[in-house]
Amino acid sequence: MENSLDFGGFAERVSQRVAELDSRLVVGIDPDPDFLNPLAPGIRAAFGDEPEAILERFCRTVLEAVKDQAVCVKPQAAFFESWGLPGMSALADCISEARRAGVPVILDAKRGDVGNTAKAYARAYLDPCSPFFSDALTVNPYLGEDALRPFVEAASRNGCGVFVLVRTSNPASGTVQSLPLKTGGTVAESVASMVRRLSEGLTGPSGYSPVGAVVGLTHPEDVLKLRILMPRSLLLLPGFGAQGGRAEDASCAFHLGGKGALVSASRSITSSFLRAGDGELLSHEQVAEDIRTRAIHAREEINRAALRSST
Amino acid sequence: MENSLDFGGFAERVSQRVAELDSRLVVGIDPDPDFLNPLAPGIRAAFGDEPEAILERFCRTVLEAVKDQAVCVKPQAAFFESWGLPGMSALADCISEARRAGVPVILDAKRGDVGNTAKAYARAYLDPCSPFFSDALTVNPYLGEDALRPFVEAASRNGCGVFVLVRTSNPASGTVQSLPLKTGGTVAESVASMVRRLSEGLTGPSGYSPVGAVVGLTHPEDVLKLRILMPRSLLLLPGFGAQGGRAEDASCAFHLGGKGALVSASRSITSSFLRAGDGELLSHEQVAEDIRTRAIHAREEINRAALRSST
Repeated sequence: MENSLDFGGFAERVSQRVAELDSRLVVGIDPDPDFLNPLAPGIRAAFGDEPEAILERFCRTVLEAVKDQAVCVKPQAAFFESWGLPGMSALADCISEARRAGVPVILDAKRGDVGNTAKAYARAYLDPCSPFFSDALTVNPYLGEDALRPFVEAASRNGCGVFVLVRTSNPASGTVQSLPLKTGGTVAESVASMVRRLSEGLTGPSGYSPVGAVVGLTHPEDVLKLRILMPRSLLLLPGFGAQGGRAEDASCAFHLGGKGALVSASRSITSSFLRAGDGELLSHEQVAEDIRTRAIHAREEINRAALRSST
Repeated sequence: MENSLDFGGFAERVSQRVAELDSRLVVGIDPDPDFLNPLAPGIRAAFGDEPEAILERFCRTVLEAVKDQAVCVKPQAAFFESWGLPGMSALADCISEARRAGVPVILDAKRGDVGNTAKAYARAYLDPCSPFFSDALTVNPYLGEDALRPFVEAASRNGCGVFVLVRTSNPASGTVQSLPLKTGGTVAESVASMVRRLSEGLTGPSGYSPVGAVVGLTHPEDVLKLRILMPRSLLLLPGFGAQGGRAEDASCAFHLGGKGALVSASRSITSSFLRAGDGELLSHEQVAEDIRTRAIHAREEINRAALRSST
């Protein structure tokens, strides 16, 4: 709550942090139970062998390691939900610890529903009274413009943001998003126009509205087109690293001075330590150091791409 | 677990239950915190004044009242999530109580994500080891065919079902779903073809696959068209009652003998008791009776529409 009052809306807080940290990196917190397997020697060495403690330590380690390198952290709701009730409790802790450390949280939950139900999701994730209160939430546009409005309204009211899925990074995302429309353009482009409409009248001093968009780096041919269609939206670009997207493909998403876009990476930063020591087991401190080093490299690589931009 | 082994897959269990109960009604369990307000005299009279106890009693009351009338119950995840951690705990209880009572659970969570993340959602909701293990899950197709496959695979493996959002019941759902495609048809029709592809090879003895579809009753002009495009899918038709959809609009969704479709209603059955006594406060028993009576009426009205069908 105090964040929204002290520092303006989400886009303002993010823009300020981009400048302060000189970073456009978002680090995903993905506590995949398959990865955090207590039977895996690398996991035991770093985090112990008690499942719920591993979950909690993993989240805290990533947060500590990246808090001065990442503009935001992005917990992936699916992984927390897959741990059942302890996962939901860990999600609440992860969100509040990040916010306490001054790191804005983008909750990647890809929610979407109609009317009162959308309001209930907004109450769960974009309301200061909720234990899951996040700075921003990813939302799914398939249900249409009226289904997104309750999220946008809650975000505006509470100094938060939303990131509407426009073009996702998975290989077959085009089976819906790239369908060509009779009136020209694609489904994703039509959703981008919806994002622009939803942004109207909400642009803050940073030049950006609370209505951002997710545009996967793995489709570089679409990034510039979608950037132009959504001039007032922060873009969140997943697909960097493990999914094969390259930092240079992000260049055209940035406005002059490396503004207006954030690149997210998860596994390539937070899970690579299992391979880092070439078979050698890393201690908790070494894992934290490995994550931090990878975050620094990713941040620098993204910065080089961002500052090449002239959109 | 035993359900999937004893009675075949979700479509088989549902088809058998439709015949046994002579019902095509799905009752939504929507514990909207705005509605279940402990300050509302009607809520206090029926459920007491302690928020978490109200939540639990509401779910149990609806379940008890409709378990012999409804083919399935459909808890809406958003409302549970909006109560925070006690809501998630109530969701787990609600799901397991319904399943213990032999009532299949369709969890309305509209999840959708890519690759490993979709697998994590499937692990949260379609895996017998999860506290949220449901008989079926609603899923969002915007991320494309590869993003739906992990859900379909988990559903097939564990005797569960998925309902893919094809055409939702909200007023502006057409802003994405009705966009006309260059190649003919609409986005919703293209998603319907995807549902048909995903169903291939999975049809069980009932004639239906584990891959169902959500088709809102509020767009009657689309129901027949989408039914024809997805001949092997159970259709879940929301929008009945409070949202203005009429039972007769569902007729063309049913196959001969009133098979292949389920009509869902929530508020018109479970929340009307606040108005039932014309200002008079109803006791817990009277509320249960009111919900039961409304479920019986809805079931009969839907049956009349279903048995008029000749698709």
